[in-house]
Amino acid sequence: MINPFDDTYFMRKALQEAEAAFEKGEIPVGAVIVVEDRIIARTHNLTELLNDVTAHAEMQAITSAANFLGGKYLNKCSLYVTLEPCQMCAGALYWSQISKIVYGTSDDQRGFKTMGTQLHPKTEVIGGILAKEASALMKRFFIEKRNLN
Amino acid sequence: MINPFDDTYFMRKALQEAEAAFEKGEIPVGAVIVVEDRIIARTHNLTELLNDVTAHAEMQAITSAANFLGGKYLNKCSLYVTLEPCQMCAGALYWSQISKIVYGTSDDQRGFKTMGTQLHPKTEVIGGILAKEASALMKRFFIEKRNLN
Repeated sequence: MINPFDDTYFMRKALQEAEAAFEKGEIPVGAVIVVEDRIIARTHNLTELLNDVTAHAEMQAITSAANFLGGKYLNKCSLYVTLEPCQMCAGALYWSQISKIVYGTSDDQRGFKTMGTQLHPKTEVIGGILAKEASALMKRFFIEKRNLN
Repeated sequence: MINPFDDTYFMRKALQEAEAAFEKGEIPVGAVIVVEDRIIARTHNLTELLNDVTAHAEMQAITSAANFLGGKYLNKCSLYVTLEPCQMCAGALYWSQISKIVYGTSDDQRGFKTMGTQLHPKTEVIGGILAKEASALMKRFFIEKRNLN
């Protein structure tokens, strides 16, 4: 039997979060954290609303998941995020010892791969899941923003 | 006339924060953020108490300073922190565009210099201010912790 809870399923949930960010005028990035096919954190970028550069979707997801679990290590968790994490978020994921990171579209300018940020040696990384959808949402955001200014 | 508000003065305030962390059983790292010789944020590591790997002193200081200023960029601010920032904190400081980072003791294992994390090109960095004091506090913490376990 096919498991319906595959990486695409959870990335779609992260994309819904990115759309929620879009609606608030935030750069549309969304994330979910999953344990045993169960979503324990759903977050989206809130840097503008909170006036806080640390309020990336991933950072909030890490805090939220740790609260849910009652422990700070996420070594049984998977993160789904629509955009490749930045240095800050990858650095936080390093400390969290997260088991798996799945991201949508790449960030060739400020993503952790370009920046050379180190993840925990036990963290598996998969990129490119629903990348087209995540990228299209980002592009639409920046086009609309440009037209409004 | 000598300005009493030099880097050592503010690092002493950061060290007081590190001591407050120590008293709570947290790895003793403290930080303050300063604008025009005025402290606008005082924080210390709370990762154990909050069960949250993102609760480093610097992360809280960035959030706190941005709240105080009502804006997310800290390009007129200086951060004083007793330990060299890690990847996550350096990544957050990159986004904040902070003007100056002054740290105490180096972290040759997980500090941003070893890890190769990029700061904002306009950020000035000074290391080694009250390094001996910050390092002694860290060593005392880990010796006491070892003896208790």
